[in-house]
Amino acid sequence: MIFSYNSPSTSYLTGYGSPNTQIIVITPTYRRATRLADMTRLSNTLRFIPDLIWVVIEDGNLLVDVVSKLLDRSNVTYYYMAYKTKPGYPKRGWYQRDMALEFLRKNAAQITNGYQHSVVYFADDDNSYDVRLFTDYLRNIHRAGVWAVGLVGGAPVESPVVQNNTVIGWHVKWNPKRRFATDMAGFAVSLNLILNSNAKFGTDCKRGAGAPETCFLEDLGLTIYDLEPFGFDDQPTLSNKKKELLVWHTKTVPVKFNKTKVDFMGFMVE
Amino acid sequence: MIFSYNSPSTSYLTGYGSPNTQIIVITPTYRRATRLADMTRLSNTLRFIPDLIWVVIEDGNLLVDVVSKLLDRSNVTYYYMAYKTKPGYPKRGWYQRDMALEFLRKNAAQITNGYQHSVVYFADDDNSYDVRLFTDYLRNIHRAGVWAVGLVGGAPVESPVVQNNTVIGWHVKWNPKRRFATDMAGFAVSLNLILNSNAKFGTDCKRGAGAPETCFLEDLGLTIYDLEPFGFDDQPTLSNKKKELLVWHTKTVPVKFNKTKVDFMGFMVE
Repeated sequence: MIFSYNSPSTSYLTGYGSPNTQIIVITPTYRRATRLADMTRLSNTLRFIPDLIWVVIEDGNLLVDVVSKLLDRSNVTYYYMAYKTKPGYPKRGWYQRDMALEFLRKNAAQITNGYQHSVVYFADDDNSYDVRLFTDYLRNIHRAGVWAVGLVGGAPVESPVVQNNTVIGWHVKWNPKRRFATDMAGFAVSLNLILNSNAKFGTDCKRGAGAPETCFLEDLGLTIYDLEPFGFDDQPTLSNKKKELLVWHTKTVPVKFNKTKVDFMGFMVE
Repeated sequence: MIFSYNSPSTSYLTGYGSPNTQIIVITPTYRRATRLADMTRLSNTLRFIPDLIWVVIEDGNLLVDVVSKLLDRSNVTYYYMAYKTKPGYPKRGWYQRDMALEFLRKNAAQITNGYQHSVVYFADDDNSYDVRLFTDYLRNIHRAGVWAVGLVGGAPVESPVVQNNTVIGWHVKWNPKRRFATDMAGFAVSLNLILNSNAKFGTDCKRGAGAPETCFLEDLGLTIYDLEPFGFDDQPTLSNKKKELLVWHTKTVPVKFNKTKVDFMGFMVE
C-alpha cells in the first residue's frame, strides 16, 4: 500500500450536531479527464465540515501527485492510498471501498482517537452534496442512517418509504426487491457496526442483482427496521411543503481526447 | 424585475490578495433537474471567498423559492433577480448577463461601497472552480485577466498563448480567429471597464461566429495586449513542472423524466 496523510488544524463550521461524533468519508477515485474537476468540487464541500476525515483510495498502483496536492490544499484531514482493482472485482470502487474498510479496521484506535463515535459514509467524487447532509444527517446517526437521493438510476429521486419514523420499504425504479434498495449515496453507518463485522463489498453480490449496497448492509447484521431515516420530519422546511434533497447522484459529462494528438500547452490534464 | 438580497457577515478565507478588491460573480441560471445540485456545489465553493458578491439571474418570470433558500444558506452576499429571456436573444444566459451588467451600472455606488476596486466574473453554475481562481487570480486583476480553462469545447484545455507575460494569441480548437478566443470561464474584468462602456452581450455577435465573449471584450475597448495572463509564471507549483488548471468547463449529465408520470414522494425536484 502507498499511503499519504495530512491533518490540518482549521475547520470552518462549528456547533453542528454532536461534537463527539467524527465523520469518516470514503471516496474511491480514478484517473480520467474530469477527475480533478470533480475532486476539486468535493474538496470544496468537505473542507466546511469539522471533525471529518477523508479516506481517498486511488484505483491504481501509485498515488497521483496532483491529487496529493489537491488534498493538501483542501485543509481536510485525509488518508490517501492506492490499491489497483484486483481481478475478479466487478466494478470501479468495490475493491477500493473494501481496502478502506480494512484500513479502518486495522487503524480504528488511531483514527477514532478523541471521538466517542464515528460515522462512515461512502461518497463518490462526482456526486453533489449539500453541507447539511453532513451537519444535520451524518453527525446525528447512531447506528445506520438512510435518506433520499436525487437524480439516481435514471429517476429524479429514490427514497426509503417511511411511516412513523420507521423505514417500511423503498421507492426505487431499479430492482426494488433488494432488502436495502438504497444507492451508495443514501446511507451511512456507525463505525462500530463495521468494526464488529466482516462486512465488505466483495467480488460480487448476487442478492443485490449487481448492487453491493444491500449485501454490505445485510452483512452488517441490519434489518430495515434498524434504519434511522433522515429528512422525513413532520415539519418540512420549505414553504411549499416539499421535502429537500441533500445529495444528488450527479454525473459529469465525460470528455475524451487522444492524448497523443492533443497539445496540453504544459497544463496538467489527466 | 423581481429581486432578493442578503448580506451575511461571515467569510472564511482571509489574507488572500488585495483586501480592497471585491469580486462580483455573475451567474445566469435556469430550471432543470440538475440545477439544484449544480447551484449547491457552486455555493459550497463561493462561500469560501471573502469580499465576494454573487449576482444570480433566473431565466424566468419569478424567483424560485428553493433557490432563494439555497442562497440564504450559502452565507454569500447575493442579489437574486429574474429576467426571462427576451425574443431575439439567441442563447441561455446572454440576456441574463446583460441584465446583470445593467444592474451593476445602475447600482455601482451601492455595490462597490467600501471597496477601492471590483472585478467582474461570469461563472456558470455547472463549471468547476478551484478556490485559488478567486484568491490568486481574480483578486489580483487590475484591468482584464485571462487564464486557461479545462475541458472546454471538446478539448482538454483552451489557453491564451503567452510570451514574456504578454498574450500573443489563443490556443483553441474552435474558431481561433476570434480576437478574444476565450471561453466565458477564462476571463474577468475590472468593473471600471464595464462602467465606462456600454459593452453587452446583445442579441448576436457576428464577429464571434456565435460566441459573445469576443464581442463583449472588444466592446470594452480592449486589445489582447491589455490582457493580464494568470497561471503562466516561470516557476510552476507542481513538481512535474505542469501548469495547473483552476477552472473547468464541466457539464452535468442531464436527467430527463416525465413529470406527470413520476412520483417525487414529496421531494423537491425541479
